[in-house]
Amino acid sequence: MIFDAVDVIRTKRDGGSLSPEQIDWAVDAYTQGTIAEEQMASLAMAILLRGMTRAEVARWTDAMIRSGERMDWSRLSRPTTDKHSTGGVGDKITLPLAPTVAACGAAVPQLSGRGLGHTGGTLDKLESIPGWRASLSNEEMLDVLAKAGAVVCAAGSGLAPADRKLYALRDVTGTVESIPLIASSIMSKKIAEGTGALVLDVKAGSGAFMKNADDARELARTMVGIGTDHGVRTVALLTAMDTPLGRAVGNAVEVTESVEVLAGGGPSDVVELTVALAREMLAAADLTGGKDPAEALRDGSAMDAWRLMITAQGGDPDAALPTPNESHDVLAPESGVLSRLDAYGVGVAAWRLGAGRARKEDPVSHAAGITLHAKPGDTVREGQPLLTLHADSADRFERALEALEGAYEVGGEPERLPLIIDRIA
Amino acid sequence: MIFDAVDVIRTKRDGGSLSPEQIDWAVDAYTQGTIAEEQMASLAMAILLRGMTRAEVARWTDAMIRSGERMDWSRLSRPTTDKHSTGGVGDKITLPLAPTVAACGAAVPQLSGRGLGHTGGTLDKLESIPGWRASLSNEEMLDVLAKAGAVVCAAGSGLAPADRKLYALRDVTGTVESIPLIASSIMSKKIAEGTGALVLDVKAGSGAFMKNADDARELARTMVGIGTDHGVRTVALLTAMDTPLGRAVGNAVEVTESVEVLAGGGPSDVVELTVALAREMLAAADLTGGKDPAEALRDGSAMDAWRLMITAQGGDPDAALPTPNESHDVLAPESGVLSRLDAYGVGVAAWRLGAGRARKEDPVSHAAGITLHAKPGDTVREGQPLLTLHADSADRFERALEALEGAYEVGGEPERLPLIIDRIA
Repeated sequence: MIFDAVDVIRTKRDGGSLSPEQIDWAVDAYTQGTIAEEQMASLAMAILLRGMTRAEVARWTDAMIRSGERMDWSRLSRPTTDKHSTGGVGDKITLPLAPTVAACGAAVPQLSGRGLGHTGGTLDKLESIPGWRASLSNEEMLDVLAKAGAVVCAAGSGLAPADRKLYALRDVTGTVESIPLIASSIMSKKIAEGTGALVLDVKAGSGAFMKNADDARELARTMVGIGTDHGVRTVALLTAMDTPLGRAVGNAVEVTESVEVLAGGGPSDVVELTVALAREMLAAADLTGGKDPAEALRDGSAMDAWRLMITAQGGDPDAALPTPNESHDVLAPESGVLSRLDAYGVGVAAWRLGAGRARKEDPVSHAAGITLHAKPGDTVREGQPLLTLHADSADRFERALEALEGAYEVGGEPERLPLIIDRIA
Repeated sequence: MIFDAVDVIRTKRDGGSLSPEQIDWAVDAYTQGTIAEEQMASLAMAILLRGMTRAEVARWTDAMIRSGERMDWSRLSRPTTDKHSTGGVGDKITLPLAPTVAACGAAVPQLSGRGLGHTGGTLDKLESIPGWRASLSNEEMLDVLAKAGAVVCAAGSGLAPADRKLYALRDVTGTVESIPLIASSIMSKKIAEGTGALVLDVKAGSGAFMKNADDARELARTMVGIGTDHGVRTVALLTAMDTPLGRAVGNAVEVTESVEVLAGGGPSDVVELTVALAREMLAAADLTGGKDPAEALRDGSAMDAWRLMITAQGGDPDAALPTPNESHDVLAPESGVLSRLDAYGVGVAAWRLGAGRARKEDPVSHAAGITLHAKPGDTVREGQPLLTLHADSADRFERALEALEGAYEVGGEPERLPLIIDRIA
């Protein structure tokens, strides 16, 4: 059926619901170039301000999936399960999580992304490892999955091309912050990826995309609805992102911390979230009663899976990681309890140090980042290092320090949400 | 000052007011191509859904005026005054009005437009006259004004180029129907045109852009505010457009009817509106106490000014106008009072007969149109012609007749608004 782009825009603009046929046509026509960029920009703004019903979001997602290929893992003997995080500061959870879940018997076919803005990207972090390759063919993905039980790589251009085009448009037109558009973007890629089960880590707080828990909960519900409507067993955890996860923010520093977790150590919040998400992933894949994720971290089987996964993608798990040329300590201004260490401030500082990128074509520095010497609730002494900044050159420090102004506070009561706020199934 | 397009879009999207500097930058950057079409489309949709304050609309208009030249009529000995109609069916008022006002001592420098959709365009109508030219240089305009006291011609490309670019964008992105954007578009051209006084004919009803009087009143108030803020003495009449104006809808047929009015005859509604608008234009130009417009229509001085104006633009006021190849009568289905003759239905029918255009590059037929044999309130007899359709070829009639289905009704009480509903100063 052929529609008129202006009619479709007007329908949404005036608060109506788009019909399934209008949605199919709009997404396809945009992918083919029949709907111009300016028309989709106007429609995206109307969707942002008017919203979408559950049925509309499901159909929109479906149309984006059908704009490309849908991967098929039916040749694998293990059930597939995956995780997606909406992004946070110091969120390296995929790195210990994927091999842990593999060690417990599931297959994790994770297509992941790069960082943009103040949140890091899983592929940027893994690329700190010498030799490791993010781009794999479908056959190579299947091969790594069969060998290691987990693969983390870049999505090919054949997967949800409508979403790729729309995401680039939303980025420059102020239409990113729409729950239906965010949810359909994430879910179209995850469903096209072919996973049988999916656990969403939806973050709320200053360092997250969603600043408050209500918005995050709505996003979580929307995504769980889409996954369910598409036959993917989907569960979401709502988790706190008011302070960075773990004690490392950046690329190589986060790989190092992840390896500590895989070795049975590491910061307690990273371990807690890794184990909680792993259990959800296994339960969603109907793999209960087997090895528990905490056990896989203790007995070395998660580390074995990590080494297999890294090696199978060309990386050397024993190679030395990039180290920074310059470091700078931020000292505690007084003695007392660190009551606040703001995720957003730390994220922006790490970004300005070179760990992140402003435009998707920018390179990142693998050595840049921040090491945290204290977490909210810890007692610190005046003059003790709170943070160490790492960069390739010292001229990065000034603007990073500006981002940290007002981002930490010593004294007063630490106010922290529990790490896991809610579970939406 | 340099702003970020996404920040400007977000400000409006989230319900804030744009600063004067943001507005100046956005309009200029869009005109220069620094803001991309898709970014302005998204901003336009945000403006449509979030609105603009009076200060924002005034500044937006100002920025569009400053994107091009502002004409200067200070060399004329007469005060300038102009009229703008928001467009209706059978609205040929400019044709008798401009020479009438000229005959009463003012100068009328009217830059006019072409029709798009179901409403006609003044230039399309005047181009029915053999030899008449719509495109004049500024020097030619001044020359015609000095000779005839009135000129009606096309706006040059140097006038409010930001508006030209934005209007074309709004047309394809479903962002036409925004009162701040409509008001600033109209007023930027009228203020750049350099008129000292301006009377707005804001139409409300099925054949108008604004279907209800409340919206039309808000548009009128917004435009009067902009004019006043820019030092142009501005008044608006709110007028009914539920049924066509006069008894002719099209191009040549409307010129013929206008000449009847200039000869002291013509339909009473056209005469009433012409005289009312002329008096407002003269009052706004401080020309009271001179010749009254009704007198100028009676004594032949308005006709003299018309002939001078047409001749000065290359037209022959005595030439035969184009006549249609085919005509078709629509008969009264029963005897009784014609209670309704819907402006929109008649407008669409005339458009389909060839009098209007769907795309701005389409040609129009000068002979196509509709003659009305009865107006609401008139008593008709079964089988008597209600309307005569005119077209260049008979295959136009079928779709025109479809547009007229349900557009007229015999029997029942005629429900008509007074022609002049309100005055906003």
